[in-house]
Amino acid sequence: MKTRFLTGITPSGTLHLGNYVGCIRPAIEKAKLPNTESFYFISDYHALIKTRDPDRIEKSRMQIAATWLACGLDPNHVHFYRQSDILEVPELNWILNCITSKGLMNRAHAYKAKVDDNVAAGEDPDNNVSMGLYCYPILMAADILMFNANYIPVGRDQIQHVEMCRDIAQRFNQLYGKEIFTLPEAFIDEEVAVLPGLDGRKMSKSYDNVIPLFEGGEKALKAAILKVVTDCKEPGEPKDPCSTSLTQLYDAFATPTEKEEFANKLRDGLGWGEAKGIVFKQINAEIGPKRAKYEELMRNPQVVEDILMEGAARLRPMSQALIEEVRNAVGLRRFKPVQEKAEQKKAKKKSCPKFKQYREKDGMFYFNLQDEKGNVLMTGGCLENGRDLGKLLCCFKANGLKAFQECYCKLSDGVTEEQIEAIRLAMHEEE
Amino acid sequence: MKTRFLTGITPSGTLHLGNYVGCIRPAIEKAKLPNTESFYFISDYHALIKTRDPDRIEKSRMQIAATWLACGLDPNHVHFYRQSDILEVPELNWILNCITSKGLMNRAHAYKAKVDDNVAAGEDPDNNVSMGLYCYPILMAADILMFNANYIPVGRDQIQHVEMCRDIAQRFNQLYGKEIFTLPEAFIDEEVAVLPGLDGRKMSKSYDNVIPLFEGGEKALKAAILKVVTDCKEPGEPKDPCSTSLTQLYDAFATPTEKEEFANKLRDGLGWGEAKGIVFKQINAEIGPKRAKYEELMRNPQVVEDILMEGAARLRPMSQALIEEVRNAVGLRRFKPVQEKAEQKKAKKKSCPKFKQYREKDGMFYFNLQDEKGNVLMTGGCLENGRDLGKLLCCFKANGLKAFQECYCKLSDGVTEEQIEAIRLAMHEEE
Repeated sequence: MKTRFLTGITPSGTLHLGNYVGCIRPAIEKAKLPNTESFYFISDYHALIKTRDPDRIEKSRMQIAATWLACGLDPNHVHFYRQSDILEVPELNWILNCITSKGLMNRAHAYKAKVDDNVAAGEDPDNNVSMGLYCYPILMAADILMFNANYIPVGRDQIQHVEMCRDIAQRFNQLYGKEIFTLPEAFIDEEVAVLPGLDGRKMSKSYDNVIPLFEGGEKALKAAILKVVTDCKEPGEPKDPCSTSLTQLYDAFATPTEKEEFANKLRDGLGWGEAKGIVFKQINAEIGPKRAKYEELMRNPQVVEDILMEGAARLRPMSQALIEEVRNAVGLRRFKPVQEKAEQKKAKKKSCPKFKQYREKDGMFYFNLQDEKGNVLMTGGCLENGRDLGKLLCCFKANGLKAFQECYCKLSDGVTEEQIEAIRLAMHEEE
Repeated sequence: MKTRFLTGITPSGTLHLGNYVGCIRPAIEKAKLPNTESFYFISDYHALIKTRDPDRIEKSRMQIAATWLACGLDPNHVHFYRQSDILEVPELNWILNCITSKGLMNRAHAYKAKVDDNVAAGEDPDNNVSMGLYCYPILMAADILMFNANYIPVGRDQIQHVEMCRDIAQRFNQLYGKEIFTLPEAFIDEEVAVLPGLDGRKMSKSYDNVIPLFEGGEKALKAAILKVVTDCKEPGEPKDPCSTSLTQLYDAFATPTEKEEFANKLRDGLGWGEAKGIVFKQINAEIGPKRAKYEELMRNPQVVEDILMEGAARLRPMSQALIEEVRNAVGLRRFKPVQEKAEQKKAKKKSCPKFKQYREKDGMFYFNLQDEKGNVLMTGGCLENGRDLGKLLCCFKANGLKAFQECYCKLSDGVTEEQIEAIRLAMHEEE
């Protein structure tokens, strides 16, 4: 099976160049790796925790979906879907609720930070904490376990949530005696580029220093780049390429040779105005065609809707099969006719290896153990009395291979004692 | 619309005569009332909180369903379904999570009692508290609000949960500005019969004094009744009918005349042994045919499965419509083509009443307000200048009817000032 990567994208408003360089571009590149199966979903159930503005949620979901598609996410190659279109997710969420201890949720960093803030402010510890915020890690576990993802690319602040998901999965597997869930691991990309904003600090909405990715078009991109802070050196004066975030912005969209050339030009006295023009041209060369695609998608929401619905439709057989397995494990089963149950038992019996007893020409009684295809797994016996052979096999069923210590017994080539022991236990279950 | 009653039945093992007399029989009677629509569901998602034994859950669900059907619940007349077959319930549960404050859950009696026990035992307050237990009132709210139930028949210990459901519904309606949810009320039946057990205390599994309803057949019923505690009076001696719970057991299955006769016989010296025979006969006359039906259903699980699945299938159009409304309110909407949106807006505009301005033969400018069918709701104006009339209508849109204080204005017959005000507000929304 391919290694599965699963990424949740929160629909939180418009995106900037920092999101593109630090998250979207590398994620889309990663999806092209061989032997991986990538899942990208718009986590709109989670978004309900953060905002109660329905129009904002609707618009934001659309913008985010259009952005990822415009940036090259190939919905035929990866799974791209909305969380809220996988109807089995909230059901799994409830079932996981029932096996998760409240103590585990109390230890979540995000919740604890909120409590600390409340206490420091002299408020009730749970002031302004919604049950959505508190239960968030369980819904996240349902997202991950639903598709048995192996790796979850996350920032360091999210590692704990993936660990909680492991705990929950492990506990479920243990409680119900089945390896239903794959245990996921956090995947930390150490090389993620952090793009500086207009003022040199990390580009972030909270610093109000962002360069928009698509919103406002080419004009807004150009206007933002013109505002990048530089020193006051005149054209002609040699400049330090490291004195401004302009260089880092350029570098994020350039080849090594181009980077070198741009730095040299600055050292040779390139004016800041001209430099900004070069940076704009370089970025727009990559972003421009994507922006055109984005604008086209925003004008045609039905296209995006169809892509997401197709993504969900492709996945639902998988989520339906998993929830059936989970329901069966916890006891939420269809009431089956007694007859059907008996047939199942019969079918199981048929598939389990069986002992055959026979008498050889030497007059002695022997047995062999045959699997459902008639392959002989073990031979033994050589007893004078048929009844003794029957007793011996009963003794084997109770005590295992040591029952044959005193008589002839041979395992067939390639058959191990462990396999025989497993068969013996299966024989017990059947009875 | 009919008044809706909704009852959740926890699948918790076999039932006794006390459950039958105190709960099942009156509930089935209540379902026959006119102008009511009754919902009975097996709360199997809740059962996961209490037990992690899948076979027990499976068996118990089947027994409970068969019991209610055998006792006369008519699935063609009421809604009878399993909670876990209404896929929209866990989704509504999550959405309600996001608008419910954690503080509300902290105040739940059941949770607080558990915390008190833990603290008293020197344990962590949340020791052995699962997230299922903690979140239980929200799932219960989802069950109730999903079908906009009016009354929830509950015991006194459950009143708080219904109140929490009201709080949650009210908060949702308020946050999203829509009356999506009906506010439910707890329905306390003051006349519920409490049946005594073998020893005279309330019949309860925890007192180990129960008389089984169906399990063990006629034989077990007879054997249990023989164990009812009496005094040592011999046959022939007058007996006090109130000295034993035998009388209350008899009374629960008898007409007033029969009750009186039975008490008189005891006063006249009826022997306890004979009395027990009479009680058994009386109870078995009612229970016996139901037991036969129960046993038949238990032998044919597919019949029960089909009834429950049909119950769910009949309800799902209702739950799907509600969840669509909820999704639409919170912003989890399908991405609609721009054109479609414009058409919707157009359709809305068309349906909203409109002002028509015109000049009469007297040379003066007038207006009227017409609804979508051309009915005139209001007439007014009589101004010399058409531009002033335009200003006047703007003023109405901003301030309401008082704009027309200084000019001619008349509402058509049957039209109220409140209706005009509602139209004015709708005009605002449109803009």
